[in-house]
Amino acid sequence: MIGYGFMGAAHSVGWRQAPHVFALPDQAEMAVVVGRNADAVAQAAAQWGWQESATDWREVIARDDIDIVDIVTPGDSHAEIAIAALEAGKHVLCEKPLANTTAQAEAMRDAAARAAERGIRSMVGFTYRRVPAVTFLRDLIAEGVVGTVQQVRAAYRQDWLVDPGMPLAWRLQKEHAGSGALGDIGAHIIDMTQFVTGQEVTAVSGTVETIVKQRPLLGSGSGLSGTAAEGYGEVTVDDLALFTGRLEGGALVSFEATRFATGRKNALTLEVSGDKGALAFDLEDLNSLQFYDRTAPEGRQGFTKILVTEASHPYVAAWWPAGHMLGYEHGFVHQVVDLVTAIAEGTDPHPSFEEGLSVQRVLAAVEGSAAHDSAWVNVNTDVAVKG
Amino acid sequence: MIGYGFMGAAHSVGWRQAPHVFALPDQAEMAVVVGRNADAVAQAAAQWGWQESATDWREVIARDDIDIVDIVTPGDSHAEIAIAALEAGKHVLCEKPLANTTAQAEAMRDAAARAAERGIRSMVGFTYRRVPAVTFLRDLIAEGVVGTVQQVRAAYRQDWLVDPGMPLAWRLQKEHAGSGALGDIGAHIIDMTQFVTGQEVTAVSGTVETIVKQRPLLGSGSGLSGTAAEGYGEVTVDDLALFTGRLEGGALVSFEATRFATGRKNALTLEVSGDKGALAFDLEDLNSLQFYDRTAPEGRQGFTKILVTEASHPYVAAWWPAGHMLGYEHGFVHQVVDLVTAIAEGTDPHPSFEEGLSVQRVLAAVEGSAAHDSAWVNVNTDVAVKG
Amino acid sequence: MIGYGFMGAAHSVGWRQAPHVFALPDQAEMAVVVGRNADAVAQAAAQWGWQESATDWREVIARDDIDIVDIVTPGDSHAEIAIAALEAGKHVLCEKPLANTTAQAEAMRDAAARAAERGIRSMVGFTYRRVPAVTFLRDLIAEGVVGTVQQVRAAYRQDWLVDPGMPLAWRLQKEHAGSGALGDIGAHIIDMTQFVTGQEVTAVSGTVETIVKQRPLLGSGSGLSGTAAEGYGEVTVDDLALFTGRLEGGALVSFEATRFATGRKNALTLEVSGDKGALAFDLEDLNSLQFYDRTAPEGRQGFTKILVTEASHPYVAAWWPAGHMLGYEHGFVHQVVDLVTAIAEGTDPHPSFEEGLSVQRVLAAVEGSAAHDSAWVNVNTDVAVKG
Amino acid sequence: MIGYGFMGAAHSVGWRQAPHVFALPDQAEMAVVVGRNADAVAQAAAQWGWQESATDWREVIARDDIDIVDIVTPGDSHAEIAIAALEAGKHVLCEKPLANTTAQAEAMRDAAARAAERGIRSMVGFTYRRVPAVTFLRDLIAEGVVGTVQQVRAAYRQDWLVDPGMPLAWRLQKEHAGSGALGDIGAHIIDMTQFVTGQEVTAVSGTVETIVKQRPLLGSGSGLSGTAAEGYGEVTVDDLALFTGRLEGGALVSFEATRFATGRKNALTLEVSGDKGALAFDLEDLNSLQFYDRTAPEGRQGFTKILVTEASHPYVAAWWPAGHMLGYEHGFVHQVVDLVTAIAEGTDPHPSFEEGLSVQRVLAAVEGSAAHDSAWVNVNTDVAVKG
Repeated sequence: MIGYGFMGAAHSVGWRQAPHVFALPDQAEMAVVVGRNADAVAQAAAQWGWQESATDWREVIARDDIDIVDIVTPGDSHAEIAIAALEAGKHVLCEKPLANTTAQAEAMRDAAARAAERGIRSMVGFTYRRVPAVTFLRDLIAEGVVGTVQQVRAAYRQDWLVDPGMPLAWRLQKEHAGSGALGDIGAHIIDMTQFVTGQEVTAVSGTVETIVKQRPLLGSGSGLSGTAAEGYGEVTVDDLALFTGRLEGGALVSFEATRFATGRKNALTLEVSGDKGALAFDLEDLNSLQFYDRTAPEGRQGFTKILVTEASHPYVAAWWPAGHMLGYEHGFVHQVVDLVTAIAEGTDPHPSFEEGLSVQRVLAAVEGSAAHDSAWVNVNTDVAVKG
Repeated sequence: MIGYGFMGAAHSVGWRQAPHVFALPDQAEMAVVVGRNADAVAQAAAQWGWQESATDWREVIARDDIDIVDIVTPGDSHAEIAIAALEAGKHVLCEKPLANTTAQAEAMRDAAARAAERGIRSMVGFTYRRVPAVTFLRDLIAEGVVGTVQQVRAAYRQDWLVDPGMPLAWRLQKEHAGSGALGDIGAHIIDMTQFVTGQEVTAVSGTVETIVKQRPLLGSGSGLSGTAAEGYGEVTVDDLALFTGRLEGGALVSFEATRFATGRKNALTLEVSGDKGALAFDLEDLNSLQFYDRTAPEGRQGFTKILVTEASHPYVAAWWPAGHMLGYEHGFVHQVVDLVTAIAEGTDPHPSFEEGLSVQRVLAAVEGSAAHDSAWVNVNTDVAVKG
Repeated sequence: MIGYGFMGAAHSVGWRQAPHVFALPDQAEMAVVVGRNADAVAQAAAQWGWQESATDWREVIARDDIDIVDIVTPGDSHAEIAIAALEAGKHVLCEKPLANTTAQAEAMRDAAARAAERGIRSMVGFTYRRVPAVTFLRDLIAEGVVGTVQQVRAAYRQDWLVDPGMPLAWRLQKEHAGSGALGDIGAHIIDMTQFVTGQEVTAVSGTVETIVKQRPLLGSGSGLSGTAAEGYGEVTVDDLALFTGRLEGGALVSFEATRFATGRKNALTLEVSGDKGALAFDLEDLNSLQFYDRTAPEGRQGFTKILVTEASHPYVAAWWPAGHMLGYEHGFVHQVVDLVTAIAEGTDPHPSFEEGLSVQRVLAAVEGSAAHDSAWVNVNTDVAVKG
Repeated sequence: MIGYGFMGAAHSVGWRQAPHVFALPDQAEMAVVVGRNADAVAQAAAQWGWQESATDWREVIARDDIDIVDIVTPGDSHAEIAIAALEAGKHVLCEKPLANTTAQAEAMRDAAARAAERGIRSMVGFTYRRVPAVTFLRDLIAEGVVGTVQQVRAAYRQDWLVDPGMPLAWRLQKEHAGSGALGDIGAHIIDMTQFVTGQEVTAVSGTVETIVKQRPLLGSGSGLSGTAAEGYGEVTVDDLALFTGRLEGGALVSFEATRFATGRKNALTLEVSGDKGALAFDLEDLNSLQFYDRTAPEGRQGFTKILVTEASHPYVAAWWPAGHMLGYEHGFVHQVVDLVTAIAEGTDPHPSFEEGLSVQRVLAAVEGSAAHDSAWVNVNTDVAVKG
């Protein structure tokens, strides 16, 4: 694993739990975690249960005893590490967003395609796909329960930037983070929409906004938990993105990604409306989904709250009896299960780098539209293959 | 009362209940209801408790014993009737939307201004303002509990057009209805946003869409309950409008008005987010609001579901004890109470025709933006006075 | 109408609205309201729209132009008035509880039976039966959707006695009120359980409790809104009743009636569980019910929130389109509709005095059990006829 | 760890995750898992990550390199193993219920007391205490936010016995399971009530019921997932228990434990009402609690949904950012954290065996009451010390 921030903790749970909860087709050992600060990464290795730590990712990638490289660094380093790892013949799991630019993402997609010819697998970490309720929602749509998709509503709302005293962390600077709410949490709802509908976003019209334009400079500390120093600096990424997308099949999608939804902590909500029914999901109530069946008898229709905790539901049989809840990190366990299974079985796991690139292109199109008075912009695609 | 459709029934409840539930400062009698079909309007009068019926609204307006004219006809006749009534010295209550065009609405606003100089009152029927929870939400914002408004989310979602067999009623034809989901239900969320924030929408970027473009011609029956005849006709109004607005104070608003939200019957939802807190309302749970207080102690914050059924809440003292629910038509009762009180006290009731015009201008701007690839369009205003 | 307290206001809405919203088979005029205080009752008549007021109920009952007597006085006068009215050949609507004692209720039941032979109708005012969602829930059970009832859960929770400063109103004195939470709100959940299941409670084991045993004496004011005087008096009725009942079919029911459920204003909740499904209702969300269908496909089961606002649902067609909410007083309108219809059609309306008596007997049995250490007590029944 | 059923899987997650998520004061290794079937227990060891497996718990207890014994066998073997382990100087974690009889539980309590004198710790596994929202709810009550507790409502509702084809597993036979819904899930709500209020249940009145009295004999398979064989046998434990309890402070508690609440999968709900406020918890929404503050300004009171996912909330800081959910097994991780911490710090962890015994006594009293026509029965206590 390259990197050891917040995502490193979450990925570590995935690697630690998967072999002991699921019956994996192959062994998965937590070999080595890599970071630039030797002491800090050694401490992370000890805490999270990795056998070793290291500071040079190139050396680690060169090792024969390493089969899989899991990349949890910030987005600007993804391309270099992932391409090197794929060329070294390692299977790659790369945390989302795939890259900070479309060009980088295209290079990664190409490297993944070349590697695939040699049986090397790659996967991007949109873990919310693997919340059982989301996977089940996708299955139900594929089965036709909502009929033709006619409208989609997707939002990801948080509120941690409402506090004007929150300091100017690297996530709020364009040169490091690439993007703000749009790229970080907007990416999730774009991927989830494309995943569950099986359709790509082909055009967008959008607006991005920075609500608090100056923030205290970061003093001691790092990440999001730093304390403020004296003086102020410019916030160079968006706080809020509102955009409308068009799906391949013609349906419109309303997207909202915000860090200024006071009181909403991690409110990813999705609703897919079709001519036969509707399905809705809420990440703050992640063990369930809501299903409206227009084919049910008149007078008895309504949204059914399905607890997605039955053994028949995706991933659930390995866990607990019906009604016993799963949480945030379970998606990371399922991600490991699916990756290891795909490698063992010689199949391509999803989401592919192609799919990660597809999300980047939608993000770029939103920024393009926002820069042109929110006029509609087509999502640039260079290939016909769908994610 | 001129007109006797669905809105006629609702307004009749308002006129019937108000004097017997509230202590009105003046008497309000249900004198005469007017419609073109003599038999049908006579039947309506008998059913709803009006003393007389008539077929010529001009004659009724000319009567000395008539003090108030309540207009519930389709939007294309509002301007002619309202202006005539105001010029005849009658107080006017006009159902929303104020008119089908901005020009008509401007003429009405001007007529109302002239009448006001003679002590004649006018009011437009955005009754959802008078749901106790909405009035209370406005009061709380005015008091400062959310602080500076930073983001608003407003949606009105219905699903009665999902059925492709729904025939081509007049509401789906532009020449009669003026607009579709945008003008009918979008108008409500524009007015409610402006009402509760006390800020006008100054610019918009939007998309409108007709999802089912052809529908069966209307056979027998009328309104929305008609049955289909053979053959199909073009739907010439929108089914769905997605737009972003900018408030005077700078905050962005996401608006969604749709009749294709499968399973959602009358789901008007509003959420106002500020730097001190947030307030949310849902018309399908109309006796409550949700309040998030960012100034509450850390670790104890959360959305508080306030049942707006206490005697201290707006309008409630005249009704039932705490926890006893009100419904849809109560707003129409409160509308009568406020109109009659304003007339008796010699004050101007809200929403004024000026405020009704303000909504029309936003609607026109959304259509203008939609016609120009969704690029941002300023809302045209000819006066500085705010509603 | 005899009496003019809180229930007088609610019944007046029923009489006022019913003829103008529903197509009644016969006319219903609001003739005269009766009370002991001439000025106060005259004011009530004027406010609520009754043609006359009077102070002697016996004189009113003797009038030929009176067809229906609606009794909304406190429970201790129900028997005398109702029996006199029935003997005078008037149809009687009597507010619940039917009486303060089982003996009185039996006498009323007998008078109603004698009157019925002469075509005189009687009805007791358990209006919650006529909330559309409750009627629909009953219909669904009768249709078999829950299968065999195996367990019921019924609660009515309020909190207005939590405040120890609430004065010693007549409702808290046994000699006037007969009973406390048990008789007032417990009666509702007993009736609703019997109504929706079609089964009587045959035995009970229960506990009653007075949590705040002394309260300030009542100074000025009356009813529940009086202000406290100096000194304290004994509360002689219960604040809280917890009891278990056995239905005819064998299922157990948990009952809870309380005025000490802090934060719960009018939370009547009911859940009926059977071998094929379950149905749940919540009076604080009274336009919907929850339906769990055990015969639905495995993995897709869940509680479906049915908005009981469709034209096909009981009573709804006369009101508003789907998704437009009804409130507390609509049950009183429906009560008038059903009573007037039954009189016109010559049928017996429900709930009958027999059914009202049945509730009294359960209440008496709970008090009997509570007085015997909560041991099980059979509900005494002198007739086989079921309500 | 002795035993390797469903609870073995859950406890294994606790032991596996705790050292890598929390900063434990001492190391905790997963040494050996013990079961009677050598092959099956070896497989469990491999799957769950235990270093060894063994078949004789006495031998394991005798080993010097074992410090902690975790007992997850059925209740009838708890006493023998726990007492032996304590006498061998091992710290003991014993899954609930503490024992099948009060006598066994008393012997265990005594053994724990003797061991405590030698610094040996013991703990019983009521893990729901360690759901962050439950711990936080307890803290809030201790801080006084609800004031004097006046009423409690506790229910644990499941539905897995509604299916009459569910075979006669050992859990439905008194000789093996001791008790049914009462002992298994009723025990949880008794403990949780005592834990959060800090008060013991001193008397009870209750009813227990077996709804489906005969079930198919168990064929192949075991536990709850077996398949039916030909023939039927008697169910000798309860399906449903309804009881009322009295707390030390005088408040009444309504308890419901059922496996016939159709559609409810794991619905443990608790509501504590006091003179200053109320707190409510729902295990199917376990990352939040509801708080009603009667001291909040009039007109703004309501139930606040607090997401218990902030770093300031119990146990949460070691996990994820606000709004990221935890699930069922996290309580087992926290249990290990608290046990290991207590051992390292030389303090007594809770819940003690004394507290486990207290729950057993309440269960016994409920059965005693049920056997005496539900009359009130005092909970027998031999010591004054409170859990």
